[in-house]
Amino acid sequence: MDPIVYLDHAATSWPKPPEVFEAMKRAMEEAVANPGRGSHRMAVKASRVLYGTRKTLANLFGVKNPNNIVLTSNTTEALNLAIKGCLREGDHVIATMIEHNSVRRPLEYLKRTRGIQVDYVPVDEEGQLDLKRIDGAFRSNTRLVVCSHSSNLLGSIIPLDEIGELTKKKGAILLVDAAQSAGMLDIHVEKMHVDMLAFPGHKGLLGPQGTGGLYISPDIDLEPLLHGGTGSQSEAIEQPTVRPDRYEAGTPNTVGYAGLQAGVQKVLEWTPQHIYRHEWELTQYMMEGLQEVRDLRLLGPALGKARTGIVAFVSEKFDASEIAFRLDREYGIAVRAGYHCTPLAHMASGTEHTGAVRASVGISTSHDEIEIMRKAIKEIHS
Amino acid sequence: MDPIVYLDHAATSWPKPPEVFEAMKRAMEEAVANPGRGSHRMAVKASRVLYGTRKTLANLFGVKNPNNIVLTSNTTEALNLAIKGCLREGDHVIATMIEHNSVRRPLEYLKRTRGIQVDYVPVDEEGQLDLKRIDGAFRSNTRLVVCSHSSNLLGSIIPLDEIGELTKKKGAILLVDAAQSAGMLDIHVEKMHVDMLAFPGHKGLLGPQGTGGLYISPDIDLEPLLHGGTGSQSEAIEQPTVRPDRYEAGTPNTVGYAGLQAGVQKVLEWTPQHIYRHEWELTQYMMEGLQEVRDLRLLGPALGKARTGIVAFVSEKFDASEIAFRLDREYGIAVRAGYHCTPLAHMASGTEHTGAVRASVGISTSHDEIEIMRKAIKEIHS
Repeated sequence: MDPIVYLDHAATSWPKPPEVFEAMKRAMEEAVANPGRGSHRMAVKASRVLYGTRKTLANLFGVKNPNNIVLTSNTTEALNLAIKGCLREGDHVIATMIEHNSVRRPLEYLKRTRGIQVDYVPVDEEGQLDLKRIDGAFRSNTRLVVCSHSSNLLGSIIPLDEIGELTKKKGAILLVDAAQSAGMLDIHVEKMHVDMLAFPGHKGLLGPQGTGGLYISPDIDLEPLLHGGTGSQSEAIEQPTVRPDRYEAGTPNTVGYAGLQAGVQKVLEWTPQHIYRHEWELTQYMMEGLQEVRDLRLLGPALGKARTGIVAFVSEKFDASEIAFRLDREYGIAVRAGYHCTPLAHMASGTEHTGAVRASVGISTSHDEIEIMRKAIKEIHS
Repeated sequence: MDPIVYLDHAATSWPKPPEVFEAMKRAMEEAVANPGRGSHRMAVKASRVLYGTRKTLANLFGVKNPNNIVLTSNTTEALNLAIKGCLREGDHVIATMIEHNSVRRPLEYLKRTRGIQVDYVPVDEEGQLDLKRIDGAFRSNTRLVVCSHSSNLLGSIIPLDEIGELTKKKGAILLVDAAQSAGMLDIHVEKMHVDMLAFPGHKGLLGPQGTGGLYISPDIDLEPLLHGGTGSQSEAIEQPTVRPDRYEAGTPNTVGYAGLQAGVQKVLEWTPQHIYRHEWELTQYMMEGLQEVRDLRLLGPALGKARTGIVAFVSEKFDASEIAFRLDREYGIAVRAGYHCTPLAHMASGTEHTGAVRASVGISTSHDEIEIMRKAIKEIHS
């Protein structure tokens, strides 16, 4: 394949650290038997792989008991488990306008089937959330607050600490969608009063696709999303209550989770603080260049403000998809164009009729690659 | 790791053909970007990987349109999607006593939450199913017949052709759990009137863990199990109706599915007929040896009868778990002991209080390995 400037890290990070693939290879060769379902050595090894992954994730997110982390196939599964597992007929939910469809569609499904009520709290044009608006949205039947930690379109970051405190004070449950923040922003579920944390394995945590997870506070019991075999309490007709078995029916993606552990270990080594700083500097450098281009409007927080590694923009001159196509074909630059599964955030930023181009950086992105992107956008618009 | 005689293929096949891992490596290096969510070349490559996997599976199962195959993380997810997506308040379901907990627990959950009714049709001690019993179980509100194609404890095989014809005649939906048959038994969904087929990627299809799928007849519309982003119709609050998007929210396990395609290609090359024959001969050889051991009772179909690659047994002298432990430690033989997530099949075979040892073979199992197993069991019982 031709050399590529990969600026689609918000979809999936690439390339992965070599350790990730080595761990997958090892798991495939040595430990593929079904964890928890046999007494032979390979099954025991597989159990250890899963426990090791949970432990490493617990370390990253400030989770005391690794068994409160459920491994899933992606963030969407984690969010479906959290939302569908906790909400009951008549509950009220506070969400925000920056939610991804992986939050919005489960909520809309429950509006239709369980009669729940949902308020999507507005954000400003930059995607910034005013805590007062969350405060004002609480009702007597508010059971759940669900917030995207960082917008997958705008890169804006919500004030998680304050929302955690507020939600706790109000006696509701806080679910955080960390699709764009896990591995880049500090997350300590206990200190921040996060009751449930849904995260991807294949973005900021540098693991392979097919991995993700959900932290569930020990105080919360969810109805499982999947019912089936767990290797424990085989004779019971209900899912076992013991964690993580309760929420992990069926054969897990042991090979993928082995890769995820290796990815998280790299994150812990580099630290989220360093990764955030690296990505932030690259977004600022990209924005400085793109701001010089006439006919371009940058979305999300203004230059100098906090944001995750996402720079989205619209052009007066070209369709978003045309820019993405030309970047790919003429410059070997991979970005994403379209609606990014977040229609309300497009409304907030006034791009609901145009979509946007999204360039997103990762820990492996270099200054030179941003330079190539800046030049390409300038040339296309010249 | 020490050399191992791996007789736990019914849990997960091992080792995988080298092509499987090579395909995963290639996908990881070249095509990890999110399929369907970007116009750049890597995203297009990822889409092609998924389509290629669907096409290969369609080829194996006699499916006309590959987009009617939904890729899942395992059979359990496929069965949950099928069962929860199709059943409504007051429906009646016919299942069998050989169902795995991945069928039984979703059904029991729906008994509790949607008031469905379920009949588990008895099998005989060998695990054989009499078609007349299925016929007699139909009611006016029977919406679904769900059958394990082959028992994961007994290795017995149900008469799928006849059940398909009967179910079609009765106007109900037939869901087949092919966890122990995909890749080993002939399955042609259209000829056999199978409306939904749930299958694992990591057993007989020789792919990696974290993969599986569900064929859904174009005549059936299910409520999705997962709601979320699909990269299509971003602005809609409901899941899109187009397949496979409707049932595949979130980032898929592209790397795993690349491996699955390579596995299925090997199955097509070797043919399920040849694989079945190979495994059957090994089970017969194993059974001939084990039958000579006093104090041992073999479960499932008698010698000479059709069965998949599973030989389960109980000993009068030792607990199942003790035998499995000694096989592992003293002989390097990996088998599984316990209840195998199928309590009703244990009732049928009279092992509900003892559990059983299960030895299961695969295409990579050799005659010599069975010889080692025969000797080991004889020594343990001498």
